[in-house]
Amino acid sequence: MCGIFGVYGHKDAAALTQLGLYSLQHRGQESAGIVAVDDIGHARVSRAMGLVSEGFADDEMAVLQGPIAIGHTRYSTAGSSAIENAQPVLARVRRSHIALAHNGNLTNAVELRRALEDDGAIFSSTMDSEVIVHRIARATGDTPEAKVAEALQGVEGAYCLLVVLDETVIVARDPHGWRPLVMGRLADSIVFASETCALDIVGAVVEREIQPGEIVAVDSHGIRSLRALESAPLNRCVFEHVYFARPDSKVFGGSVDRSRRALGRQLARECPAIGAEVVFAVPDSSNSAALGFAEESGIPYELALIRNHYVGRTFIQPTQSGRNAKVKVKYNPVREIIEGKKVVMVDDSIVRGTTTRGLVSLVRAAGAKEVHMRVSSAPIISPCYYGIDTPRREELIAAQMTHEELVRHLGVDSLGYLSIDGMLSAMPEGPSGYCHACFSGRYPTATPADPELLRAGSAAGVPVGVA
Amino acid sequence: MCGIFGVYGHKDAAALTQLGLYSLQHRGQESAGIVAVDDIGHARVSRAMGLVSEGFADDEMAVLQGPIAIGHTRYSTAGSSAIENAQPVLARVRRSHIALAHNGNLTNAVELRRALEDDGAIFSSTMDSEVIVHRIARATGDTPEAKVAEALQGVEGAYCLLVVLDETVIVARDPHGWRPLVMGRLADSIVFASETCALDIVGAVVEREIQPGEIVAVDSHGIRSLRALESAPLNRCVFEHVYFARPDSKVFGGSVDRSRRALGRQLARECPAIGAEVVFAVPDSSNSAALGFAEESGIPYELALIRNHYVGRTFIQPTQSGRNAKVKVKYNPVREIIEGKKVVMVDDSIVRGTTTRGLVSLVRAAGAKEVHMRVSSAPIISPCYYGIDTPRREELIAAQMTHEELVRHLGVDSLGYLSIDGMLSAMPEGPSGYCHACFSGRYPTATPADPELLRAGSAAGVPVGVA
Amino acid sequence: MCGIFGVYGHKDAAALTQLGLYSLQHRGQESAGIVAVDDIGHARVSRAMGLVSEGFADDEMAVLQGPIAIGHTRYSTAGSSAIENAQPVLARVRRSHIALAHNGNLTNAVELRRALEDDGAIFSSTMDSEVIVHRIARATGDTPEAKVAEALQGVEGAYCLLVVLDETVIVARDPHGWRPLVMGRLADSIVFASETCALDIVGAVVEREIQPGEIVAVDSHGIRSLRALESAPLNRCVFEHVYFARPDSKVFGGSVDRSRRALGRQLARECPAIGAEVVFAVPDSSNSAALGFAEESGIPYELALIRNHYVGRTFIQPTQSGRNAKVKVKYNPVREIIEGKKVVMVDDSIVRGTTTRGLVSLVRAAGAKEVHMRVSSAPIISPCYYGIDTPRREELIAAQMTHEELVRHLGVDSLGYLSIDGMLSAMPEGPSGYCHACFSGRYPTATPADPELLRAGSAAGVPVGVA
Amino acid sequence: MCGIFGVYGHKDAAALTQLGLYSLQHRGQESAGIVAVDDIGHARVSRAMGLVSEGFADDEMAVLQGPIAIGHTRYSTAGSSAIENAQPVLARVRRSHIALAHNGNLTNAVELRRALEDDGAIFSSTMDSEVIVHRIARATGDTPEAKVAEALQGVEGAYCLLVVLDETVIVARDPHGWRPLVMGRLADSIVFASETCALDIVGAVVEREIQPGEIVAVDSHGIRSLRALESAPLNRCVFEHVYFARPDSKVFGGSVDRSRRALGRQLARECPAIGAEVVFAVPDSSNSAALGFAEESGIPYELALIRNHYVGRTFIQPTQSGRNAKVKVKYNPVREIIEGKKVVMVDDSIVRGTTTRGLVSLVRAAGAKEVHMRVSSAPIISPCYYGIDTPRREELIAAQMTHEELVRHLGVDSLGYLSIDGMLSAMPEGPSGYCHACFSGRYPTATPADPELLRAGSAAGVPVGVA
Repeated sequence: MCGIFGVYGHKDAAALTQLGLYSLQHRGQESAGIVAVDDIGHARVSRAMGLVSEGFADDEMAVLQGPIAIGHTRYSTAGSSAIENAQPVLARVRRSHIALAHNGNLTNAVELRRALEDDGAIFSSTMDSEVIVHRIARATGDTPEAKVAEALQGVEGAYCLLVVLDETVIVARDPHGWRPLVMGRLADSIVFASETCALDIVGAVVEREIQPGEIVAVDSHGIRSLRALESAPLNRCVFEHVYFARPDSKVFGGSVDRSRRALGRQLARECPAIGAEVVFAVPDSSNSAALGFAEESGIPYELALIRNHYVGRTFIQPTQSGRNAKVKVKYNPVREIIEGKKVVMVDDSIVRGTTTRGLVSLVRAAGAKEVHMRVSSAPIISPCYYGIDTPRREELIAAQMTHEELVRHLGVDSLGYLSIDGMLSAMPEGPSGYCHACFSGRYPTATPADPELLRAGSAAGVPVGVA
Repeated sequence: MCGIFGVYGHKDAAALTQLGLYSLQHRGQESAGIVAVDDIGHARVSRAMGLVSEGFADDEMAVLQGPIAIGHTRYSTAGSSAIENAQPVLARVRRSHIALAHNGNLTNAVELRRALEDDGAIFSSTMDSEVIVHRIARATGDTPEAKVAEALQGVEGAYCLLVVLDETVIVARDPHGWRPLVMGRLADSIVFASETCALDIVGAVVEREIQPGEIVAVDSHGIRSLRALESAPLNRCVFEHVYFARPDSKVFGGSVDRSRRALGRQLARECPAIGAEVVFAVPDSSNSAALGFAEESGIPYELALIRNHYVGRTFIQPTQSGRNAKVKVKYNPVREIIEGKKVVMVDDSIVRGTTTRGLVSLVRAAGAKEVHMRVSSAPIISPCYYGIDTPRREELIAAQMTHEELVRHLGVDSLGYLSIDGMLSAMPEGPSGYCHACFSGRYPTATPADPELLRAGSAAGVPVGVA
Repeated sequence: MCGIFGVYGHKDAAALTQLGLYSLQHRGQESAGIVAVDDIGHARVSRAMGLVSEGFADDEMAVLQGPIAIGHTRYSTAGSSAIENAQPVLARVRRSHIALAHNGNLTNAVELRRALEDDGAIFSSTMDSEVIVHRIARATGDTPEAKVAEALQGVEGAYCLLVVLDETVIVARDPHGWRPLVMGRLADSIVFASETCALDIVGAVVEREIQPGEIVAVDSHGIRSLRALESAPLNRCVFEHVYFARPDSKVFGGSVDRSRRALGRQLARECPAIGAEVVFAVPDSSNSAALGFAEESGIPYELALIRNHYVGRTFIQPTQSGRNAKVKVKYNPVREIIEGKKVVMVDDSIVRGTTTRGLVSLVRAAGAKEVHMRVSSAPIISPCYYGIDTPRREELIAAQMTHEELVRHLGVDSLGYLSIDGMLSAMPEGPSGYCHACFSGRYPTATPADPELLRAGSAAGVPVGVA
Repeated sequence: MCGIFGVYGHKDAAALTQLGLYSLQHRGQESAGIVAVDDIGHARVSRAMGLVSEGFADDEMAVLQGPIAIGHTRYSTAGSSAIENAQPVLARVRRSHIALAHNGNLTNAVELRRALEDDGAIFSSTMDSEVIVHRIARATGDTPEAKVAEALQGVEGAYCLLVVLDETVIVARDPHGWRPLVMGRLADSIVFASETCALDIVGAVVEREIQPGEIVAVDSHGIRSLRALESAPLNRCVFEHVYFARPDSKVFGGSVDRSRRALGRQLARECPAIGAEVVFAVPDSSNSAALGFAEESGIPYELALIRNHYVGRTFIQPTQSGRNAKVKVKYNPVREIIEGKKVVMVDDSIVRGTTTRGLVSLVRAAGAKEVHMRVSSAPIISPCYYGIDTPRREELIAAQMTHEELVRHLGVDSLGYLSIDGMLSAMPEGPSGYCHACFSGRYPTATPADPELLRAGSAAGVPVGVA
């Protein structure tokens, strides 16, 4: 998953972009980057592995001059974790440059890359996104937006794009609308972001969503909207609301906090925990859902798990062994709340089950009499090909066990998931127009011919690594 | 403020200490350090500015061998921020070493340092804690604990100490008991920590608090307790429960989460917010109190402010000006919760008022109809000389303004603080035996002759800086 | 200028390449890089700004596995100083990779790049060398060497290339033979290097020079030589012998130390310094020439200037002003040798004259009675377009002043340059077949249409910078 | 060995000191440091492991304000290699500071340290030098120079000291005069340095040597000289002229280059190499001696070994094994000079013999018919206790083998050392007043009771390491 942010027409475009990326850090912590274009059309790039707060030294920010900037935070879905795969991509071409930041995952990237390579293209990364850069470079359209539209013909899968061509910013959202993209205004400047929370941090006012299938161009000639992409059924990602987006964002037109509250309430209706004395969240992504569960069920909401925010991403447990080691570093239960109680622990989703199992064990060790696990989404049984880094089916615990096995495996007294219909009913504007492939296994498009190759991000039979 | 952690008798002492320091990171983020003593009595130290997760590279940890280790996280109260002031201190003396980690603040450090310097002592830091190291080096007692007891005669103020003398670990807590210190067991090992949450992370079982005025020594001859310090009235820091400690810790014998819940309930009784529709916390330290307020008042609890945990400590706002800039990077309101509502915002304390003012402004911009500020402690009107880094009185907003001025300054519709008595009534084991000097101005001991000199941490008229 | 080194068929190919680059560090100190290809055809790259000793951490070297490696040290002649312009280039293409290291400078790079861009190519650097990578990617030849030969049709200027295509190493030297390139053997492995000193360091035996216009391919099918490039007159760079190469190398079939000795002797014959008492070198590149001058003239050779090898490349004179400041940090005269004497100072060349002027002033301050400057090459009056980073004509002091002006400007009592014919007579195998464009202004090929654009390394009217 | 440099009364004192340390880098490459004292008496320190060029970032230099500065480059002789052992030492004491930089080695440091520790002193390093700081702190004299004189009573061994006490700079040289120390002037400022080359680099004029047993103080009251140390026979280190000092320095009143030339001439007289055709140096420290040998013998001087100055100090040979591996990275012979010749290789000294053996092997591999080794000093048979880091006797090859064994071991056709008398005869001002203990085994003072303990630099039975 990734976060993208762009500014057109502000003298501090790169600094605003850095701020915006702070707000989108939850969408990707592997690398971060900014491309800025100055008043005379020079493009400069700064990219680094790690967090936004680690990546941009003052002297680097000072170099990123100019009124145009786009930025990217990345968690790899396609292409290995390496600095060459950090975005935005910046390519030099025909007296100018193409800069691109991409959120999503192209399902036919392997085929598109092979075709380009057969035509002499050389690639400097293993990312699917670089395919689009090459296609833009070869496009012959008259306007920047026409070039992007031309480049996107035949490109399948999920994408929200920020492109800079010369001194025009072009944004595009795929016709299925998997990923969110919003436009805002800050005085005379135009701002684009994956989520509204990034507009808030820079003080921009939300203007509207970029529509599925829409291309918008902004430059000195103004703002132009183009509908040149083939139309497709709406397939917005339900997991953005369930887990991925920030609760203070509006996504696909609705408040994430409100949809999570609704998911929690629906969960309490579908899977009540009769006789339970306490309900608590696995912080922080499940806080809203747990509060909704408490509200609907009448069971008191407590802050029974404390999360340590100082643990670095790369923390490696130095000495302890056993299944709870990693979980213990990150979470600690409040014994006084839990001891002797029948408790409901709410989480938004279960992927591999490792963390859940560790948490259940911690909660039992803190004296819980019964542990009732409630999950504010349906069981995840299929990998995502549209931009979320879910593992292979073999690693998805709910795809590998029956309900009873899972109850035993997790060590809970009961386990309740939301139904797919219940989950969709909590979405803003109702249950239709959402992709739920990871929950239902019903993919709205053809899936990649070779998912592993797509995952490697390499359009080549011979893998090509980079130190 | 600082966090301290120590292990006696575990083959992975330094690794456990690193884990423990992760749990005590909230007590100090300026620097971190570990001293380990190996099987043949070699002491080694690793110290670095910044977080625990930044400070200890794998190769450094590999060097910190041996069954004894003590560690420290620091936020400077006395002595400037510099690597020479990172702890633990490690001194070489008489064929051996003295290692020391200190949480607290000595009120007569300036005088003690002058006396030592007049006697030829030279100092390698500007910390008050170094005074104790010199006094231990000059002590003539027969046992390690007798030396520490001798060194502490005449030392005034707040201290919890972890000392390693040769292969003995000695801990001491001042007779007033300002700061917390607990002892636990992990199999055959003894573990000491500022808070119980640090025992939890290493899997140690809490054994008991170190008593005010108690010295405990652990070595190959066993565990010995000594009561050699002059007795004094009990003055445990109420602010540990109000704000400082982690909610999953037991401090001074009581659960921090439970006392904060009680503070919130008491706040709702003392300062109800009649007609308010929503109550929310300034996350995360006020979550418990806000939940208590909601519980007592019946006003629904909401997650209306989202905190960005990715913002680095050193973040400098690059472009925005205005009073909300810094606050905006860290907090974002959920408009859907707040808009058109009369809201109660609960925080644990107000120091300079800058953050509160910014938050109020953010909340108003998100559409709140009325903003009622509730604070789960009394107004802070006096500096702390016992280990908490409160600013000078001139910077304490509640010491500078009347209630009405403060309401206007913060921009709230109403402002309610807890009374001192109400605050103390929420403490575990009742209201007595607590220091509330920062709230009441009633200092339980003589205050420093020259607070600024103490703050500088330099026992010298001529300041001595270090690059 | 640049140095290149490659290994085919040795299990420690990357480590040998690192060693070889140490020996070629004098050919480029701006950046260094290595590409290695492992047993199953994975290519990995490590590149860094700065010296070889700074660039490759142990863990990076550990990743560079496999029996094939090529390396590069760079001093920019085309393309700005930036990590994206470090070599070797590694491109992913058609299920494989192209790696390339280039020493030289293409005179029609701007035109070639425009043609490629018009055909949809995108560039990730501003280096002229990237043009060749694109041309190789588009080549349709049956064999790796045929592809390289095809790619080089129409490419003008100076190049020695090391290319890895899949698991074949291909080397090429332009038909004019401007830059040196040798092949050696180390047991069963084949080694290529800019200079023989790099074969010595890895213990390889010199086999032969790569011939001008020759392409050699090495892979599991053996070694193949191809003569597919259009023939051209021989134009080996005389400046390699005068200054650039290391004295312990054989270049163009002759010992650099021996040719410099001959240059010094010829200089003594053409420009004797009658009555001088001492001759000394500007260390270290002029040592041989000064010794030759002493030998021929009978004036005693002395070590009168001591060079400080610890001064970093990025040293910025912090306080001193005046013309000698920078020179003083690097050189110090031995007063006891110079005082009261008529001295001859020998240098290999004068470019801008700044260093010479500073040295003359230092030598005078050390008490020299007369300073006679002798230069073991002809006056540099024209820029080089074939790979040496000489400045614009306006900065070449000998192109801007008459001999008399120069004598005054440098502050010498006399100034003697070698004649072009004298200089060429000292070359191994006699005076013919050398390029002396920088001394004579007679360029053996068409010069670039727009030298500044070539220098910028950007085939674009709009400059494209990179932070 | 170490280099020291100090400035009194210059607005750019720290910057000049950095420059001076560049010139003294050959005296110590392990760590470097500067203490500066500003106009209002604040002392600041910057110290780092590694070279001067690596150690001082611009922002650190900017902090080192003020008219007083002292600096140090270190190669450890006593005390392990660690940042805590970098100098200058800066101690805070009695409203002020003591800064100290020391070149030399105290022979009774262990005893002095024990006495101080028994009196309650605690040490923050394992360096012998810290003993002097403690003694200065305890001195009661009326003036800064009286305090230093008092502190030095009973201190035995070799020392040149730069001390800053408040705003006075005090320098001292031990009565035996082992190490050099000179005073110079730069306009109104006073400059001190280990060697005159460091005065040259800052443009200071040499004023005079600091005399053995002399203490000089400089402050706002002027310059004062004190002769308060017990007198002792003159024992200047002959090895400074043989190897250690830079050839462009005057040391002990004489030019190092001139004495090395005299050593080379004397060597040719004592150990001629009849029939040899070529003489060359092991660069760079033996260049002068080899030139002297050539001059006296009439055998032509050649530059037959080329040294690679780019090899980092920490270079670890990655792949090659065998005895020549390390030598090959640093030196390469010029085959054209050596092949088929009877050669004389001149080096200044042989310590362990490893490098010599490797060089002989390289020279033979380059085709030498005969290799005659000539050494411009006597055999090293005893360790130095006065500041040079010679290894234990067991590692001194000349102490372990007969001449015949050594000839065989090194692989030479003949081996000639200078006699001790011949060596001393080449010293400036004649042969008397020099320490030659490492050559003769005749120590001019009592040797340390426990040399290993002194070497460890720890005055303690229990070693105390530092990560």
